[in-house]
Amino acid sequence: MAKSAGMTFTNRRSMRIEWGDCDPAGIVFYPRYFEIFDASTSALFERALGMTKLQSFKAFDFAGYPLARTRARFVRPTRYGDDVTVDTSVTFGRASFDIEHRLSHNEQVCVECAETRVWVVRDPAAPAGFKSQLVPDAVRAKFE
Amino acid sequence: MAKSAGMTFTNRRSMRIEWGDCDPAGIVFYPRYFEIFDASTSALFERALGMTKLQSFKAFDFAGYPLARTRARFVRPTRYGDDVTVDTSVTFGRASFDIEHRLSHNEQVCVECAETRVWVVRDPAAPAGFKSQLVPDAVRAKFE
Amino acid sequence: MAKSAGMTFTNRRSMRIEWGDCDPAGIVFYPRYFEIFDASTSALFERALGMTKLQSFKAFDFAGYPLARTRARFVRPTRYGDDVTVDTSVTFGRASFDIEHRLSHNEQVCVECAETRVWVVRDPAAPAGFKSQLVPDAVRAKFE
Amino acid sequence: MAKSAGMTFTNRRSMRIEWGDCDPAGIVFYPRYFEIFDASTSALFERALGMTKLQSFKAFDFAGYPLARTRARFVRPTRYGDDVTVDTSVTFGRASFDIEHRLSHNEQVCVECAETRVWVVRDPAAPAGFKSQLVPDAVRAKFE
Repeated sequence: MAKSAGMTFTNRRSMRIEWGDCDPAGIVFYPRYFEIFDASTSALFERALGMTKLQSFKAFDFAGYPLARTRARFVRPTRYGDDVTVDTSVTFGRASFDIEHRLSHNEQVCVECAETRVWVVRDPAAPAGFKSQLVPDAVRAKFE
Repeated sequence: MAKSAGMTFTNRRSMRIEWGDCDPAGIVFYPRYFEIFDASTSALFERALGMTKLQSFKAFDFAGYPLARTRARFVRPTRYGDDVTVDTSVTFGRASFDIEHRLSHNEQVCVECAETRVWVVRDPAAPAGFKSQLVPDAVRAKFE
Repeated sequence: MAKSAGMTFTNRRSMRIEWGDCDPAGIVFYPRYFEIFDASTSALFERALGMTKLQSFKAFDFAGYPLARTRARFVRPTRYGDDVTVDTSVTFGRASFDIEHRLSHNEQVCVECAETRVWVVRDPAAPAGFKSQLVPDAVRAKFE
Repeated sequence: MAKSAGMTFTNRRSMRIEWGDCDPAGIVFYPRYFEIFDASTSALFERALGMTKLQSFKAFDFAGYPLARTRARFVRPTRYGDDVTVDTSVTFGRASFDIEHRLSHNEQVCVECAETRVWVVRDPAAPAGFKSQLVPDAVRAKFE
C-alpha cells in the first residue's frame, strides 16, 4: 500500500489460479481475470476505507461502483497452479475514477487492465434502481 | 410441461455446453452443472407462475428459494459443443419443496440431481435478512 | 447471418440473463458478459465453419483463438430475466482478427465490446504449449 | 494438516467471499461453493503429494479425479466480505475416494459437503478420452 502526492493509491494481492479457472486449452478462461480484477478493486477500497464493501454500503449509503468501461491486454497466459500477483491502483476524476490492474506471474506481466468506474447511489426512480453521483469527498479523502 | 395428479410439475429446457464451461480435461467443470440446474429451477417457476423471478418478487413479496440440500450423481461427462437437455420436476412438501433435474445428451442421462429448497421472505431482524416460510397457497396452486 | 463484400461476417444469438449471472446490486456481474461474448465468438465460428469448436480442432489442427486484447463499454445494465441479443461480427487481418459484439435488450444497446484474437497451434516447445500463426486460408475462405 | 491412523488426511484453507460470488439476495450463489470445494480438494492433494496438480499430471500420468457423486447441506448463508474456512478430509476406498468439506464462518458451520471421486487415466479409446482406475499405491502412500 502506498500513497503518492498525485492521488494514486495502490494495493497488491496474490491468488492461486485454480483448475476451475482454466479452459480446455489448460490456460485461464479470460472472464476469470475480470473476476480477479473486480475483487482486486474491492480489496483496494477495503484497504483505503478500512471497512468491507458491505460495511461501506451502510457507512456511505451508496450502491456500488459499476464499470463504465474496461480494456485489457493479455500478454502471457497463466495456468492452474500458478500463484499470481495483482497490483492495483486508482486515480480519481471528478465524476468517475480510473483503476489499473497488472497481473504478474514470476515477475512477468501477464495481463494489464484499465477500468473506469462510476459511483452510484440508490434511486428508486431510475430504471436500474440507482444513478451515478460524484464520489463523496469523505471517500476521496481516504485515498489521499 | 405436464401436470400429474400427484402434484408433480415438470419442465424441459435445452442448452449448449460452452468452451468456458469446461476444464483442462475438456469436460464440464462440475460447478457449472449447478448453475444450469439453478437456472432450470427458475425456468420451472417462471413457467408455472407465468412471470419471471423478478416479477414474482413483486407479486408474492418473497426473497427467493435458497437451497437447503442438494445431491448429484455424475454418470457421463459432457463436453463443449454438446447440446444437452434438462428435465426438471418439483414436488411440494409443507415447508419445503423437492426439485429433481436430469441432464441428458443424445438421450443418455449424464447427471442426476435432487435439491430441497425453502421459501424465504425478507426479515430485517434475521441474521441474513430473510427467514423461511410455508410456500404460499397461491404459489402452490399454480403448480397443480 | 450476412456476408458483406468487405470480409465482415456476422451472427446473432439470444440468451436469458439468469439469477446467477447477477450480483448483489441485482444487475449482471460484468465478467459474465465476457463469458457471453466468448460463446458468441464460438457461435460465429461454428456458423462460418459449419462445425463445432471440438470438430474444428480435428479438422484444422489448431488450439484455439485466445484473446490478445479486449475492451468493453457498459451503457445500460441488464438484470435477471432479461432476454438479450448479441450481434457479433468479425474482420480478418493478416495475423489476427477483430471481433465486435453488441449486446442489446429491448432494441437498446447495453454493452459494446471489441476483441482482437490470434490463431494458435500446438507447439510443445512453447512455454504455454502453443504459438500463434496466420489464420489458414481454408478458414478465412469460410468467412467470405 | 494431520494424519490419523485410519487413513484420513486433512487440510484447512481460508478464503474471502467476494461480491461476484453473491447473487441478488446478497448471499453466495451456491455453485460457487462447489468451486471452492473443488479448489479445496486440489489443495489437499497438493499438500499430500508435495506438488501442484499440473506437476502431478506429469509425475503420475493421470488425467484427474472427476466427481462421481456429491451432496451438500446449506446450513447458514455467507455474504461478500466474509472470511471463511474450509476443512477438507479424504478417506480412500479401493477404486474411489471420499472427500468431506466443512465451510465455516466465525466458527459456525455454513456448508457441509461430501464427494466421491474416481481416479482417471487417459484412454484414447474411451468416449471421453479417459477411464477410471485404482488409485496408485504411490499416491495412496502419500496420504498415510
